[in-house]
Amino acid sequence: MAYTPSAELVGRVEKGETFAVARLISRAEAGVPEARAAIGEIYRKAGRAHVVGITGVPGSGKSTLVGVLVKKLRATGATIAVVAIDPSSPYSGGSILGDRIRMADVALDPGVFIRSMATRGAVGGMAHAALDVVDILDVAGFDWIVLETVGVGQDEVEIAHASHTTVVVSAPGLGDEVQAIKAGILEIADIHVVSKCDRSDANRTLTDLKMMLKEAMPGDSGWRPPVVGVSALNDQGLDTLLEAAARHRKALDGPAGERRRRHIAAFRLAKTAETLVLERLKPLMATCSADAAQKLSARHSDPYSEANRLVGEFTGENDHD
Amino acid sequence: MAYTPSAELVGRVEKGETFAVARLISRAEAGVPEARAAIGEIYRKAGRAHVVGITGVPGSGKSTLVGVLVKKLRATGATIAVVAIDPSSPYSGGSILGDRIRMADVALDPGVFIRSMATRGAVGGMAHAALDVVDILDVAGFDWIVLETVGVGQDEVEIAHASHTTVVVSAPGLGDEVQAIKAGILEIADIHVVSKCDRSDANRTLTDLKMMLKEAMPGDSGWRPPVVGVSALNDQGLDTLLEAAARHRKALDGPAGERRRRHIAAFRLAKTAETLVLERLKPLMATCSADAAQKLSARHSDPYSEANRLVGEFTGENDHD
Repeated sequence: MAYTPSAELVGRVEKGETFAVARLISRAEAGVPEARAAIGEIYRKAGRAHVVGITGVPGSGKSTLVGVLVKKLRATGATIAVVAIDPSSPYSGGSILGDRIRMADVALDPGVFIRSMATRGAVGGMAHAALDVVDILDVAGFDWIVLETVGVGQDEVEIAHASHTTVVVSAPGLGDEVQAIKAGILEIADIHVVSKCDRSDANRTLTDLKMMLKEAMPGDSGWRPPVVGVSALNDQGLDTLLEAAARHRKALDGPAGERRRRHIAAFRLAKTAETLVLERLKPLMATCSADAAQKLSARHSDPYSEANRLVGEFTGENDHD
Repeated sequence: MAYTPSAELVGRVEKGETFAVARLISRAEAGVPEARAAIGEIYRKAGRAHVVGITGVPGSGKSTLVGVLVKKLRATGATIAVVAIDPSSPYSGGSILGDRIRMADVALDPGVFIRSMATRGAVGGMAHAALDVVDILDVAGFDWIVLETVGVGQDEVEIAHASHTTVVVSAPGLGDEVQAIKAGILEIADIHVVSKCDRSDANRTLTDLKMMLKEAMPGDSGWRPPVVGVSALNDQGLDTLLEAAARHRKALDGPAGERRRRHIAAFRLAKTAETLVLERLKPLMATCSADAAQKLSARHSDPYSEANRLVGEFTGENDHD
């Protein structure tokens, strides 16, 4: 099959052609340099979809929640794309498996698109690739885009926050050690969800969470993150959650939304710049590192001294020595 | 308490003073710039300990294996330090908890040191910080250093491979989807362990693994990775594993060992250079990104164009335009 140039794919993504969408996503994910101008063009065309970040610790029931949300949203006639990034999930190493399992229900519905992203490779690279994928889906015409990440690891949390509405999922019965981790992600929530509310210990988690949030300061936007109890099993709380998401979307119409979009843009710029700078550092590293590695393995120098010299050369600083 | 300059800590680490070791480790982990010269000095003094990397997918029983290995090794009179990096573990967000749980048995034994490292923050940063910590423990006089990482994510795997002997742990009954992930880490193993060999389905895993390896090419060192079945429960196979580790250590005496040390040195140099270059990029990003973020959020530009400009400025390329 002939290689379709990425520039050509842009117009076909705009028409929502599944083949073109999948093709350009693969190139964004792999960081193919040839695709960058096209993805840049995609970026400038995007901005229509509402992006919902969903995060929570392993075992919090994120994926189940995403599954039922997709069905609820789809039933309203909206189209939905899901981008899942979960390094702790057994699927992440073999994205296809994850896709297959979750796709079963919706495989033949063109209004739903689900993609698991492998997390091998640079984490910064993953962040900007994931957001490139979001843009492609946005331009392809999906109304809602769900960005699911596991809430462990700074970058995963930041990706979930690089969305319009961030949902943090807590679950009953995960114990105190998990609560300690969650403390780090509570602050990014626009909406809190307590999952598995069919369980008898869910009330305690709801109460604990509400207590904890009472002591927190309200954000400068005036938005107070609601706490929504949800049970995928009993179809409970899902409408409330969707209502909360719609209210938050509305709250972003004013200056709060503009602040949020700038925050996301600054994050993307940072992650893209990190990827590009490391990419350019590589050839220099390849030419210098054999000598340096020999000195290092003999313990005649140390990694900081050698790296300093290398980076100085890269930025042209050493020229002035 | 007065701040002890890092330079002063080096001599005290050499004497094995726990306070100094813990203090310098914390600074290495946090990436404190003041500590870098001292850590460079530490690097030049290190190289005596044997470093064993242990990796495997979540649920493979790595941590249990490490626990019993520590006891076995300690019983021979050797001193052992463990550095654990596991983003999928519920402990990693709150390292202290993990430390406490595992320390229970050995808390009062100065011949054992266990440290869980949080993985929040840059992954490249984590890799070089972890290896700095290994050096500190080496200079502090520990005979064996175990570097435990979860075998998901490229950097975690690379860290485990930045050791003298890399052990890859597989477990029976984790299913095919997990085997697919493991395929990526099998090749880095100097020793394969099948854990939980008290289980009836362990034989199948042993056979499968041996079959898979039969088809693999032998490394250029001539070392053929053995497959060792282990049961922590029944104290089975642990002596065989330690014998294999000792044999591999011996096999590294010649040119294979020199190659391995250079590989580790090149990896460290790369990771340290990545950290330093991103650190230096930050101030530039801070001054440029408000303008750029505004342009981006209005979709008047795209992240690649803006990042390219920024990186060009950083490397001095734009000067020649």
